[in-house]
Order: sequence, then C-alpha cells, then structure tokens
Amino acid sequence: MARFFIAGTNLLNGPRVIIRGRDAEHVQVLRIRPGEDVTICDTQGTDYKCRLVRADKEEAEFEVVEVVPCRGEPSVEVTVLCGLPKGDRVDYIIQKSVEAGAHGIVFFQSARSIAKPDDPYKKLERWNRISEEAAKQSGRGIIPRVSWAPDYGEVLNTAVHHDLALFMYETGEREPLNTVLEANRSAGSVSILTGPEGGFEPFEADLARIAGLHICSMGERILRCETAPVVAVTAVMYATGNLS
Amino acid sequence: MARFFIAGTNLLNGPRVIIRGRDAEHVQVLRIRPGEDVTICDTQGTDYKCRLVRADKEEAEFEVVEVVPCRGEPSVEVTVLCGLPKGDRVDYIIQKSVEAGAHGIVFFQSARSIAKPDDPYKKLERWNRISEEAAKQSGRGIIPRVSWAPDYGEVLNTAVHHDLALFMYETGEREPLNTVLEANRSAGSVSILTGPEGGFEPFEADLARIAGLHICSMGERILRCETAPVVAVTAVMYATGNLS
Repeated sequence: MARFFIAGTNLLNGPRVIIRGRDAEHVQVLRIRPGEDVTICDTQGTDYKCRLVRADKEEAEFEVVEVVPCRGEPSVEVTVLCGLPKGDRVDYIIQKSVEAGAHGIVFFQSARSIAKPDDPYKKLERWNRISEEAAKQSGRGIIPRVSWAPDYGEVLNTAVHHDLALFMYETGEREPLNTVLEANRSAGSVSILTGPEGGFEPFEADLARIAGLHICSMGERILRCETAPVVAVTAVMYATGNLS
Repeated sequence: MARFFIAGTNLLNGPRVIIRGRDAEHVQVLRIRPGEDVTICDTQGTDYKCRLVRADKEEAEFEVVEVVPCRGEPSVEVTVLCGLPKGDRVDYIIQKSVEAGAHGIVFFQSARSIAKPDDPYKKLERWNRISEEAAKQSGRGIIPRVSWAPDYGEVLNTAVHHDLALFMYETGEREPLNTVLEANRSAGSVSILTGPEGGFEPFEADLARIAGLHICSMGERILRCETAPVVAVTAVMYATGNLS
C-alpha cells in the first residue's frame, strides 16, 4: 500500500489528513482513486490507514479509517556516524541504512575523507529527501534524520551519548562485534562509527578508544565504506531481535 | 596489500607465481616495483605472500615469501539464490553478497522478474568478473561463482542441498530469521532465496514450503530486492560467528 508521512506541509486535521506538494503529485502519479486506501505515518511511530476523499495536483484529502502502531520501527535506536565518502556512496549509505533500520545518520569530514564539500549543510536537504524516500519504501515509522557534524569531537560526543558506542576498525586490537553485542542485547540506543574510503587514521581510533567507544572487528573480510554501515546496522538489528 | 588470484592464465609454479593478462596490467597500474610484496590467493583458501621479481605489460613474476591460510573465508558456505532483478541491481547484489561472505550466487527468472534476458548465460562472464573484483577487494579466499538456474525446480533443488535452506518472504506465515538461525548455528552450508523487485508469487513460496525450505521473516521493514541478500547473508554470518 502507498505510504506517506505527515511532514512538511502535510497535516493531520482531526479525522482527516491533508497531503500537499510533491506527495499530492505522487497520489496522482500512483492513480489513487477516491475510496482507495493508503498508509499515512505521523513520523512518531503511528500509522493511519486512510481512504482518499478527493485529490488534485495541489492537494489530496483522506479520511482516517484506522489507527495502528507502525510495525516497521525497531526497538533499538541506531545512529550511524560515517566519515564522508565520495559521491553517490553517500546516497547509498543513507538509503541502505534507513532500510536496515537506522534511526539517524551523521556524516563528518574524517581525516581520510577524499570528498571535501565547500558547504556540506547545503547537501542536507537532498540527503534528507533520500532518507524520506527510503523510509516510505521500507515502511518506517519515522524519517531518519541525516545531519552533518562539524568536527570529530562532536562526532565522538554524539557517539558516547548512546547506551552502546561502536567504532568499526579494520586493524589492531579489537573486540569481536558479536561479543560486544551479545553482552549488550538490552541496549536501547547504539552508535556506529564507520570510516570513508581510506578507513580511519590511527589517531581517530585512539581518540575513540579514549572516549570509551568499543573498537570492533566485523571479521576478516574488508568491507567497502558504503557496505560497512548496512552490515553493522544489520548486526545490531539481529542481535537485538529486530530482524525477525 | 594488493591481492590477486591464481585463476585463468595465472599459475603457481613451485616457488614462483606468474600473473598474466589483466592482472599483469593491474600490477603496472598499481606501480608495484620489484622487491615489493602482494598477496596471491589460490582460490582454495590459501594465501601466498609474494615478492615481485620482474614485470612487464604481459606478465609479472613473483617469488613466494610466505604461505598462510586465507583469513577472509567464513566457516559457513552461503549460497544466494536470487530472482533476477533489473539492470545494475544484479551487479550490486553480486558485489555486496561477495563482500558479506557469500560462497556462491545463483540468479533465476522468477515469476515477477521484470528483466527477461534473451541469453542470461552470455552475462555470466561479466557477472563472474564482478565477483572476482569484489573477492579481491574484500580479501576473500575464493572467487564466489555466479551462475544461472534455468528453472525454479532447479533453484529449489539447489536450495535444499544445503544444511539449512531459507526462503525470505514478506507476508503470510513465517518463522523469525533469528529463531531459525539460532537453532542451526552449526550449519555448514546455508542457502538463501530472495525475490526480484515485485517479490515472490504465492505459488513460489508454497513450492518452497513443500520442498522443505524455512519461510523466513526479516522483520517488518520492507527491504529492496538488492538489499535483502546482503542483509540475509550478514545475519547468517553473525549467527555463525563469522562477523567477529
């Protein structure tokens, strides 16, 4: 069933939901007719099963038929903190992390980031649109927020404000990811740090260790920078019973 | 360290390894000089640490310095059986499944496959080259084979010739993936069936059930057809202790 979010100019008005702008156009594109149903999510974890009353290019009006908790939300809040990679790898990381169940995604300029955007904040609108599309497609109950961290200190500060903070590293002394997750199955929030194409500089790992993050190994296979986040999020979802 | 496979025209000759063709060109592109080391894998799970002796555009000769078991191979053999999706999703599924640790990948025309190649066998060379590149990048000890199954009966037959056979389905009566995997942690081989863009037809799920596959749920989030295989392979790797 088609899925929309009560966000932007869309609004819930008593027993009615009004969808506007790009979403209203989407209703037309999907040829949804009056009397047909869609799911409209309040981005707070609640789904409204709604029936189309009327629609034009600017606006579509639905009546609420049923209110149910959104089942697409995992019980654990996972934040992906990712050293900025090149080009479309960013889009890919956003889309796949949202599908896999991430609650938020933060990009930052890490020491080996090749991409050096003049103004990363300009990209946030587009990045968040990718997140919204992926959230619709995958039936999420929220729109995971994509944001930018100006420096590594803020990245580490964000990371440690989770019940469990993980730093994915390819070398040196590390804890096996499954051991760390088995010991923290009840964590309500988890942060995952992954690097850009060239991985992390040793000093970045050292600082993470000092800050109290778990330096984790995901096995002997080398994962591309755009693959590591979805693999790590999936491991957390599996360990916390959110992949069943 | 650069990685090559003893495959095609490359050969291990006593204490020497000869690399030819595209790989020899790659040695030049990487500007590897005599005296510098690379890893050359026999595709059987053994790595040879080798030192370059001489190289030109056609051929590079290395001397074997050290022989070690390849650490990139998981203890479980996972075969991905995937209903053929459109275009570059195939490339993506191959690359990410190999990174995640798949042992082999089989594509087939499932009922809702939109892509209908005249001769899928013509595509195998390119598909296997994508697998080889991903295997090099991720440090695998084998080159996972990409093949084509002519009909669904053969797909199911391949699936059930594994210790554990899983059918990933989005609806109806299903077993939670983690429950199935927890109960089969010692499985030496696992097959994973995933669908194309439109998912599976009910009859495909019914046949799988009759054939004895576990019809599994990967949670309430809808995964794209190119995302499901990497998530499923990762779950198997995690459950079998190969993600640590």
